[in-house]
Amino acid sequence: MREIFQQDLEQVGDDLVAMARLVREALEGATSALLSPDLELAERVIDGDRAIDRLQEDLEQQCITLLARQQPVATDLRVVVTGLRLSATIERMGDLARHVAEVARGRFPEQAIPEVARPTFEELTSSARAVATDVVDLLEGHDVSLAARVLEDDDRLDALHRDTFRLVLAPSAADHSLTPQEIVDITLLGRYLERFGDHGVAVARRILFLVTGDAVAHTAPAR
Amino acid sequence: MREIFQQDLEQVGDDLVAMARLVREALEGATSALLSPDLELAERVIDGDRAIDRLQEDLEQQCITLLARQQPVATDLRVVVTGLRLSATIERMGDLARHVAEVARGRFPEQAIPEVARPTFEELTSSARAVATDVVDLLEGHDVSLAARVLEDDDRLDALHRDTFRLVLAPSAADHSLTPQEIVDITLLGRYLERFGDHGVAVARRILFLVTGDAVAHTAPAR
Repeated sequence: MREIFQQDLEQVGDDLVAMARLVREALEGATSALLSPDLELAERVIDGDRAIDRLQEDLEQQCITLLARQQPVATDLRVVVTGLRLSATIERMGDLARHVAEVARGRFPEQAIPEVARPTFEELTSSARAVATDVVDLLEGHDVSLAARVLEDDDRLDALHRDTFRLVLAPSAADHSLTPQEIVDITLLGRYLERFGDHGVAVARRILFLVTGDAVAHTAPAR
Repeated sequence: MREIFQQDLEQVGDDLVAMARLVREALEGATSALLSPDLELAERVIDGDRAIDRLQEDLEQQCITLLARQQPVATDLRVVVTGLRLSATIERMGDLARHVAEVARGRFPEQAIPEVARPTFEELTSSARAVATDVVDLLEGHDVSLAARVLEDDDRLDALHRDTFRLVLAPSAADHSLTPQEIVDITLLGRYLERFGDHGVAVARRILFLVTGDAVAHTAPAR
């Protein structure tokens, strides 16, 4: 019985890794589609989000079945509950990648990102990709030291997100003559990528809590 | 033993209602603070979000303790897992109310919403308040017919959210001479309120699933 349970638990872990890989792929595709721009790639990301949603539903059902049949306690219970939570967070990261792809699709064949904002968005997308990779690595290895890397990558994302506001609101903004559409897109894309990082931090905190039981790391607000 | 369990389950339900009431209060405060504008009220909402976060952490711990001690199955298990999920969603609604209050605080003593966007935002905030009230009512009574009301209120929110884009992007937008700051604020506030509605729909779907076992209602994507 316990052996079957361990197999089930491993399955939950494997499925979380599979979800996180799909999300990394989606985020990489979405940000490439945005900066190229590439309509076909954007559409592939948008369609692909359904697979992430389905994995999440399966995982949730798996966790509930596990709870009902195996009635885990202590660490095992914490693993299952964390699995439930992480699946929701990772699914949400997939949605945010899809939102980025939707902006790319909506502006195609134009560039959504005007030239003046391009350097900031190249860094923003690269930091978001780093977070997506951190999350996969963290789920694959549960190496707690990786959690620090997520926090660093998210800090960079937050700083770059503030830069997007400076770009749009600077007194010299009139010089760039950004259109209202460009201001809206920069605002929303900045927000999506910043939220992507926040969710990465939430994943890191939950895994840290699982491994170390450190509730401070877990409950510190991700603002 | 079972009797204690029923009491625990009721406690989870009561705490969810308490959280939802705090969120309704926060959203009402935040939207009033935005439209007045009212700095003191905005700050009260921002500070008050910590109480919602704490309730969520308590509720999560309660649910985990319940799972460990009582090892519920069938409907009881579904109630506890739904409690876990709902607490996260409602906490997020509190964050969004706080974000609205933060915009109000950031612009004070100016109005964040320019005159031309005021009618749209009066309707948007009133629809978001309706969702907040629906969620409280739904959690208090588990009256499934209320779920339909949440969907309606959310549809209205979505339509009004699209109106905010029209406002900002219309060819006549130049006539309003919206500043970049106003465009950013309208974009983000529209997004916060639209997301608030989405989360309300997620709550409704989970409760519908709990009461009717209707997985279609539950899994239909909230896009």
